Amino acid sequence: MAAIGTRPVSAPGWTGQPRTDVAIVDCDVHHSLTKNEDLLPYLSRVYRERVADYGFLLPGSGYFNAPKRAVRPDLSDGCDVNGDAARKRGTSYESLREVHLDLWNVDYAILTGGNMYSAGVIPDPEYASALCRAFNDWTIENWIAKDSRFKMTMAIATSDPRLAVQEIDRIADHPAVVGIQLPTGARLPYGNRFYHPIWEACERHGIAVSVHPGAEGAGMAGPPTGVGYPTYYLETRLARPQMAMAHCVSLICEGVFERFPRLKFAFVEVDQFWVPGLMWHLDADWKSLRDQTPWVKRLPSEYFREHIRIGSQPLEEPEQPEHLLTMLEAMHADETLIYCSDWPHWDWDDPATTFPRLPEHLHRRIFADNARELFNL
Amino acid sequence: MAAIGTRPVSAPGWTGQPRTDVAIVDCDVHHSLTKNEDLLPYLSRVYRERVADYGFLLPGSGYFNAPKRAVRPDLSDGCDVNGDAARKRGTSYESLREVHLDLWNVDYAILTGGNMYSAGVIPDPEYASALCRAFNDWTIENWIAKDSRFKMTMAIATSDPRLAVQEIDRIADHPAVVGIQLPTGARLPYGNRFYHPIWEACERHGIAVSVHPGAEGAGMAGPPTGVGYPTYYLETRLARPQMAMAHCVSLICEGVFERFPRLKFAFVEVDQFWVPGLMWHLDADWKSLRDQTPWVKRLPSEYFREHIRIGSQPLEEPEQPEHLLTMLEAMHADETLIYCSDWPHWDWDDPATTFPRLPEHLHRRIFADNARELFNL
Repeated sequence: MAAIGTRPVSAPGWTGQPRTDVAIVDCDVHHSLTKNEDLLPYLSRVYRERVADYGFLLPGSGYFNAPKRAVRPDLSDGCDVNGDAARKRGTSYESLREVHLDLWNVDYAILTGGNMYSAGVIPDPEYASALCRAFNDWTIENWIAKDSRFKMTMAIATSDPRLAVQEIDRIADHPAVVGIQLPTGARLPYGNRFYHPIWEACERHGIAVSVHPGAEGAGMAGPPTGVGYPTYYLETRLARPQMAMAHCVSLICEGVFERFPRLKFAFVEVDQFWVPGLMWHLDADWKSLRDQTPWVKRLPSEYFREHIRIGSQPLEEPEQPEHLLTMLEAMHADETLIYCSDWPHWDWDDPATTFPRLPEHLHRRIFADNARELFNL
Repeated sequence: MAAIGTRPVSAPGWTGQPRTDVAIVDCDVHHSLTKNEDLLPYLSRVYRERVADYGFLLPGSGYFNAPKRAVRPDLSDGCDVNGDAARKRGTSYESLREVHLDLWNVDYAILTGGNMYSAGVIPDPEYASALCRAFNDWTIENWIAKDSRFKMTMAIATSDPRLAVQEIDRIADHPAVVGIQLPTGARLPYGNRFYHPIWEACERHGIAVSVHPGAEGAGMAGPPTGVGYPTYYLETRLARPQMAMAHCVSLICEGVFERFPRLKFAFVEVDQFWVPGLMWHLDADWKSLRDQTPWVKRLPSEYFREHIRIGSQPLEEPEQPEHLLTMLEAMHADETLIYCSDWPHWDWDDPATTFPRLPEHLHRRIFADNARELFNL
């Protein structure tokens, strides 16, 4: 592997060369409602009336994020944090196009939403499904229609798999839909057979499953760590890899990728460098304990490398920079890592300076090819 | 660092050289009741009578471990798994001395018990404390008295910190007591202020806190992952690092090591190579979010390196052997790693073949010096 230098990755927008191929797929671009009320026209009358009485009742988990509602400080321009200008800066199509898509010459942006991550931990699955349906229709009309670079992972509530499958069947064949979007927060790990009808529908439509932090510790999700509720927001950020680990292990041990051999998952914004240790321990333990899960027919790491993708943001920064390439090699980043910006949040990673100069092949896999294969772009 | 070779580490017992210094401290040796009833003489009449009616009611978590009740197959000699001979082979002092302490020339063995890990998730704290007290007295009379190489981490139930402190005050100054023993399974992460009186007592007596898998998903502990209950035992093994991560992050973010600057924790049998990524992410996030936890005054990784130790067993085996030294370097193993055998369980690690040949300094830190400092040996 090439040595690590200090030269920034040259995104196409920096080189001034004409575009020749897909070079940047950003797998985590948040598009948001400016206000929840924008959803009302997409909801049936019964929910419009209830929401008028009680609000949307989207469960939160009670931790303060960073100032300015977690939007990039450089975008908020010193405006009133709750004012229209500040929020628009991070949430409007125009600011996204100007400050991100055009600036970096992003080829595809996967719109991952955010407002509906906690729908699945609302007790009432009919209402949760109605919210997701409304958000999906709103996304198609107000975002997808505006820019051919947009793809979307559709909002889904898992609390009633039958309703989830109905929504997938309704719009998954829309050319912009490349996956479903789930939160890390869940009552059961994602390998559990409770979810299998949803995975079957995703495989049938050829779309992926993207999982992003959200809903942990909220609503019906239960404590966000295996040892109860942490106290501070900082702790919940470190709980993200823990939840991703639990989901990945569950998917492999329950044999999900034997049942659905074309299904792929992306775990986004959950750190990266827990992956090698998890693969190594899981492989070793499987050799000793595989009589308990005979449907797991191959080394667990093989399923991981074939079926699970990991978002690059926030990229963990080694204390010794030369450890980065070893970590990337150990996690098979050429197969598993996908570039994510996390637009427009304060801890976002731009495509030019996040990584040091990488070997050409690895660079292409992380910034474009892994995501193109994952989302059939 | 020296290259990795194939020559096994030479434990003192293998070289035939005279002993010159403490060379092996084994920080995880399980001593067990042959049958729970051995505890009865150490319990008060009220509990003896209840136990006669209902049994010990120690909560389990409902996952099958490996065959032969998880004891090393090479020790069970083909005996009936539940027979006296088989169990004695793994649980008697004589077999421990013969097959482990004398064979490998172990200088100190920290007796970590096991039977009482789930005491703290019993609903009734008075009964839980009585069980721990009985187990501690039984340990001192039946194990500590037999061999000067034995030290112990005393059993403690956390469900009533006041009772825990009473038990610590009762026996922590016994020369064999070097710490308290807690399970990873917990209702609240160990940084929570609920536990601080216990940490105060440990610091006051100069003893450490050892945390070992147990009680996860059992009794009052709640789900053992941040996304609910996994299905298979194999998954629960991979949940161990997740729980350790949550505890470590909690200890640092709650400022435990600012309040108790001489307190040290050991997390044992929870894997190892999640440590670098956790340190890196926590340091980066702390720089951005430290206004939310102003009592965390230094880089989180500094608290980790000073106050938290990680057991070596089961050692994660890199797919590419040359990655091992990088991982050890990245986790500051010369400060953080302590040798553990996990006697007498099937996945144990002996002192001679677990590691490749390590640099002399690193070898001494892992096998002896880190543990000597941790436990004041």
